[in-house]
Amino acid sequence: KDLIEMQRTKKSDPNDPFASEPGRHPALAPSSSKPFNAEPPAELLVDNYITPNELFFVRNHLPVPQVDMKNYVLTVGGEGLKKHSFTLDELKEKFKHRKMVATIQCAGNRRSNMMEVKKIKGLSWGIAAISNAEWTGVFLSDILAHLGLADPEKRGELKHVQFEGLDLDPEKAPYGGSIPIEKALDPSGDVLLAWDMNGEPLSRDHGFPLRVIAPGIIGARQVKWLSKVWVSPDESPSHWQQNDYKGFAPQVDWDTVDFKKSPAIQEYPVQSAICEPKDGAVWDNEEEVTVRGYAYSGGGREIIRVDVSADGGKTWHPTELVAKPNQGYNRTWAWTLWEADVPLPKDSKGKEVELCAKAVDSAYNTQPESFKPYWNLRGVVANAWHRVHIKVEDDEDN
Amino acid sequence: KDLIEMQRTKKSDPNDPFASEPGRHPALAPSSSKPFNAEPPAELLVDNYITPNELFFVRNHLPVPQVDMKNYVLTVGGEGLKKHSFTLDELKEKFKHRKMVATIQCAGNRRSNMMEVKKIKGLSWGIAAISNAEWTGVFLSDILAHLGLADPEKRGELKHVQFEGLDLDPEKAPYGGSIPIEKALDPSGDVLLAWDMNGEPLSRDHGFPLRVIAPGIIGARQVKWLSKVWVSPDESPSHWQQNDYKGFAPQVDWDTVDFKKSPAIQEYPVQSAICEPKDGAVWDNEEEVTVRGYAYSGGGREIIRVDVSADGGKTWHPTELVAKPNQGYNRTWAWTLWEADVPLPKDSKGKEVELCAKAVDSAYNTQPESFKPYWNLRGVVANAWHRVHIKVEDDEDN
Ligand SMILES: [Mo]
Ligand SMILES: [Mo]
Repeated sequence: KDLIEMQRTKKSDPNDPFASEPGRHPALAPSSSKPFNAEPPAELLVDNYITPNELFFVRNHLPVPQVDMKNYVLTVGGEGLKKHSFTLDELKEKFKHRKMVATIQCAGNRRSNMMEVKKIKGLSWGIAAISNAEWTGVFLSDILAHLGLADPEKRGELKHVQFEGLDLDPEKAPYGGSIPIEKALDPSGDVLLAWDMNGEPLSRDHGFPLRVIAPGIIGARQVKWLSKVWVSPDESPSHWQQNDYKGFAPQVDWDTVDFKKSPAIQEYPVQSAICEPKDGAVWDNEEEVTVRGYAYSGGGREIIRVDVSADGGKTWHPTELVAKPNQGYNRTWAWTLWEADVPLPKDSKGKEVELCAKAVDSAYNTQPESFKPYWNLRGVVANAWHRVHIKVEDDEDN
Repeated sequence: KDLIEMQRTKKSDPNDPFASEPGRHPALAPSSSKPFNAEPPAELLVDNYITPNELFFVRNHLPVPQVDMKNYVLTVGGEGLKKHSFTLDELKEKFKHRKMVATIQCAGNRRSNMMEVKKIKGLSWGIAAISNAEWTGVFLSDILAHLGLADPEKRGELKHVQFEGLDLDPEKAPYGGSIPIEKALDPSGDVLLAWDMNGEPLSRDHGFPLRVIAPGIIGARQVKWLSKVWVSPDESPSHWQQNDYKGFAPQVDWDTVDFKKSPAIQEYPVQSAICEPKDGAVWDNEEEVTVRGYAYSGGGREIIRVDVSADGGKTWHPTELVAKPNQGYNRTWAWTLWEADVPLPKDSKGKEVELCAKAVDSAYNTQPESFKPYWNLRGVVANAWHRVHIKVEDDEDN
């Protein structure tokens, strides 16, 4: 099923499933328009610890559904369990409200950087398919406890929590994803069903009226327009869980790939990127360059250090972590913003300089130096050192 | 305090604190004798999924204490908590027994590989400061619940669980380490106080009568000859928690290091090594080479893939994960053994070939390509690709 095909549907077509898409902020740069996928300019991203709602990157796999709240219910159940239906008001009344700051990153973030090694089929994301917000909702663990699942000894063969959205593919099958039941049941896992983003109800692009926030896990599992939560011995049967969003070794190509052989990505590895200056910028100070960016790791692992180089990785300089969360051991769900004034190599005037950034997380995980040994056919978890080339202005340029 | 100094004490000295060390298996290759530190031959390591007790690597920071069981008690308490003392028999009677297979790796494993970039002060560990065993003991979380600490809301300012051993430095201060309270309180964290290793009481070298098994965390926190468990707002004040076992950026040297600026290592990042063939081996098949090794990651993250190269990392081949645990999501505490028959590059006969291995864990974390950008002055978490050089035999060599 070629989802890209759908983008080619004409706007004037009365049967266009994308006819009722919401309006978007003009600063969002689309990597595809149908379905809508877009990221903010990197320099705006790094200006705000909490990403303003209208600049939060958008990753839609299908047309945005129109939800009529008069009919909206969330169905919760599972194999061998009673089925419950909740209106949004019932969820809000029955369970304790929780607030949490969490970063969401698309597993395809920085695919365009990985593509420089070799072509990849997929949206050409830049470095800004990542954003940070404060979410309000209820703990999925509280809802599962309500179903009688609190005690790990009682859950038997149930191993995954599947989610379905109200967004439908051309055959009317919903978008879906799942997470391990351990993550869902653990109150320290902090999985939310959220209705509010930065103090406002979710917008249509971000999953109105309810979405999953599974912090520390890739965006693809944080299902929007949530209609169903289903506890199961199996992972979600959806295309995106089974045959997409998996990593492979660099020698695996579309002729040899077997999607069953690799696990569905859940936690993200450590990541960082330089948001300023931009690639190709001209810099007018020959002594030092001010570099700013973000860093983030999956699984609640904290960023403990970001190093920056102005000579392509030969020598390194410390950065200041200027905005960072204090959320606790393996519960650090929000990103870290960093900056540094990095001395330029001697005699840089008139020359090109390669800036690099690399982050370290609390498990001392690191980013790979280059993409080639980690290239994968889906272009996911692209987390090699981010490299930006700037030109140091020569006096004669003035 | 120069611990290395102690090694220089003469064996004949009647005041030698090392006069009553236990006997050791002759296959263990010491990296220091006083205190005793030794690793098994890598090819024996990879022969056994469960490391035989007598081959398990030994990492002692101080002389091995002689414990008189008539007087042995474990003291458990903390700031604002009642103090309890347990004999070993009381611990065994009061709490449920648990069995678990877990790998322990010294944070200094593979330091000798990192030293090839630049000198490092510290024991020159090869690739075998890592071993795997089945441990029997009681959950630390059960003991802490007995102290009234089960409810995370009640623990207030208590943030760390400190451990002290019966091994003493020349000033009679004990070895010590601490782990985050979240790890200690979480039943899924699987922290044991263990008295049994592979069905036998702990040997003196491995902590008789009781040691901490904090799976997924570096060896240095898994305190042996355990005498005290203390819950505190602070980390262990010991030298090894405060001023050792921390990572730094490559530009930080002994003149500029500030140990307060880096967090104590807890979880280990993803690691792998080639145990066979050994560096410098002569190989008598010009078609392919059989490569065997281990892979392991901290924090309970499973090994999902190991790639091997026979051309220094230009092309990669899959390996078979021949022995691997099935312990569950983020509770995979035991290592994975792997092997592969890797095709040799054309015309390798008579030439040197560089083998490389790199592993990927369930959070898609990877090993760095080279040590230089990750060199650190203590030589810890040395997890760059393992590179082994072999010579492919020429017919004329025969
Ligand atoms: Mo995504
Ligand atoms: Mo260690």
